[in-house]
Amino acid sequence: MNKCVFAERMKNFQASDIAAILKVTADPEIISFAGGLPAPELFPIEELKEVVAQVLEKDGTKALQYSTTEGYAPLREKIASRMNRKYQTRLESGNIMITTGSQQSLDLLGKMLIDDGDVVLCESPTYLGALSAFNGYNPRYVEVETDDYGMVPEALEEALTREKRAKAIYVIPDFQNPTGKTWTVERRKAFMDVISRYDIVVIEDNPYGELRFKGEVPPSLKSFDKEGKVVLLGTFSKIFCPGMRIAWLCADGDIYEKFAYLKQAADLHSPTLSQYEINAYIDMYDLDAHVARLIDVYKKRCNVMIETMKVEFPSSVSFTIPEGGLFTWAILPETLSARDLLMTCLEKKVAFVPGGAFFPNGGHENTLRLNYSNMPPERIIRGIQLLGEAIKEHLR
Amino acid sequence: MNKCVFAERMKNFQASDIAAILKVTADPEIISFAGGLPAPELFPIEELKEVVAQVLEKDGTKALQYSTTEGYAPLREKIASRMNRKYQTRLESGNIMITTGSQQSLDLLGKMLIDDGDVVLCESPTYLGALSAFNGYNPRYVEVETDDYGMVPEALEEALTREKRAKAIYVIPDFQNPTGKTWTVERRKAFMDVISRYDIVVIEDNPYGELRFKGEVPPSLKSFDKEGKVVLLGTFSKIFCPGMRIAWLCADGDIYEKFAYLKQAADLHSPTLSQYEINAYIDMYDLDAHVARLIDVYKKRCNVMIETMKVEFPSSVSFTIPEGGLFTWAILPETLSARDLLMTCLEKKVAFVPGGAFFPNGGHENTLRLNYSNMPPERIIRGIQLLGEAIKEHLR
Repeated sequence: MNKCVFAERMKNFQASDIAAILKVTADPEIISFAGGLPAPELFPIEELKEVVAQVLEKDGTKALQYSTTEGYAPLREKIASRMNRKYQTRLESGNIMITTGSQQSLDLLGKMLIDDGDVVLCESPTYLGALSAFNGYNPRYVEVETDDYGMVPEALEEALTREKRAKAIYVIPDFQNPTGKTWTVERRKAFMDVISRYDIVVIEDNPYGELRFKGEVPPSLKSFDKEGKVVLLGTFSKIFCPGMRIAWLCADGDIYEKFAYLKQAADLHSPTLSQYEINAYIDMYDLDAHVARLIDVYKKRCNVMIETMKVEFPSSVSFTIPEGGLFTWAILPETLSARDLLMTCLEKKVAFVPGGAFFPNGGHENTLRLNYSNMPPERIIRGIQLLGEAIKEHLR
Repeated sequence: MNKCVFAERMKNFQASDIAAILKVTADPEIISFAGGLPAPELFPIEELKEVVAQVLEKDGTKALQYSTTEGYAPLREKIASRMNRKYQTRLESGNIMITTGSQQSLDLLGKMLIDDGDVVLCESPTYLGALSAFNGYNPRYVEVETDDYGMVPEALEEALTREKRAKAIYVIPDFQNPTGKTWTVERRKAFMDVISRYDIVVIEDNPYGELRFKGEVPPSLKSFDKEGKVVLLGTFSKIFCPGMRIAWLCADGDIYEKFAYLKQAADLHSPTLSQYEINAYIDMYDLDAHVARLIDVYKKRCNVMIETMKVEFPSSVSFTIPEGGLFTWAILPETLSARDLLMTCLEKKVAFVPGGAFFPNGGHENTLRLNYSNMPPERIIRGIQLLGEAIKEHLR
């Protein structure tokens, strides 16, 4: 073809960091702190054998057929009660829609809300997969100051007052990706107080909330939402397995209804068989007990990583001590570039994600994200030692 | 919320006909010719039990984990050779991307190609699910005259000359949805000759091609494509099962690459487990033999429907005699409205899709689509008798 005239929006899509990461992590020699992959050795494979046999025996013809856009009703029911129990929401199954990963919710919420040049507010830094989803709709990003306690309410108010085209706020209040930080209850309340004065949709992404190592689960933003402004996203990817691509959206009224139109146009519905399988698993086994096993392992890995960082990293490097989730976040001295550091580390067969990619408006190249869920303790120790060495080399 | 300011494009999304259809067909009392559902009693459930057990045993940790956006390499390899064998293409696995149903390809190709007000050319009528996918990107639709032999080349040339903003042509040359018609080889060649003179992308959707009751499989448009202008879509939904949501796109160069960016932003990747399962099924069983069983059943159902229509419908009603696929298409006298007819039929517990929905620019309300794959012969006979009665009532 002489020229294929792509849509304007395609200028926002370039070879992505995530894709590059997924390729690096496929090499089993690499000690990878780069992805956000759950530990595959914890997938409930034996249980799934039982589950699938039973689903195919009992419901095979339905589980393999087309199904409704909203998702399998018994599973939606279970999700609603689980969310209410964990996050103090008051959801019914009619608020729940099954999605093909939470990534699909991010894409379709972008499609629902963003006209060219509209503003999306986000934490600084924020999840880069959300940015790649929203990018298709040409937003402008405004990063709102975010500290160790969450998004700073005064900064949010200031941004909402200034940005007349603000349409959505994207946040991850629990074990944030990439920083591993969690908002305090006070900050959650203050946030909801600010947004109550603006016509804006809040996208509360919570893939990691159940993976809490200690302390109380704080109430979700959605639990304070009396006006249907908050869309809460959850997923089975981190508490069960990502390979089934089953996640969910919790929303109200118009937002829920319009999301269903977009979902139907995007892929008709999410995999029926996976929905039946997860539903049967929850009936036949104890998902809470499974999550407790994950927590046990991830907590140990997190501790090993943090303790090794304390020993191996120069004191000029600061980092998050997470209370849960999959990530910690390190800030190097400002003279260092994490992208350059990564090149050194890849020679040592260690990978991580340079933090700059998580700041939609650039900068902060002295930061990096480290995942601890996907490597056994001995490889975490070795990897952090090598990373520490590399940092020291770069400091010289 | 006082007001949620949705994006402009949301005005194109209304309660959809497909959704309404899926709801009607959920009532087991209804004799439904409405959906496009495969016969669930033919799903290879027993074989799948073996397949899943083996996949989980052998590859459980990989099959449940995140995977690459392009899809599982061995399955892409198999699809490439299958397409080459069936449709005279020369594809390699690097041309194949796994998608979450073909619906996802339609959505993402719309996103890739269409700016506000760009033109999409299509057959008249065309698949309404494609329209709902493209609608998100605000196209204008130009219906190109289509007769019993396919799209009319002179009409296509005329439209391409006139429409400077034409970006894509969407066609279903094999057992078209909704008409059940198949393009002749001559029309395929003439079509490719015309489009060779324009910078335009052809979306060739082929979900039904393997379900051929008689005669030779014609070469795909993609088999004549020397410039990478044709994107060919295939799916396991009609030859295996739709509940896994596994389909594929065949494309070249820039289009393939940009599709991968969009796919990653839309759902990261399609279900890993389903991809492993289908791959193992093809290794362990004979997919061609399975398709032969489907053809046997659908051919009988089609014959029963057509023979009953010949007897029960007034001679003023014309209809397609399909050589394969899932649908026939009836044209009523111009004074009748298929939407009104549907209301009468629903009282008689018979459903179909009024044809007007398949014409993006409206009109043709005297047409209707009938599906024969999802009902046993005795219900097809009864349903067509009732439909014939209803037509006669409306003619009085």
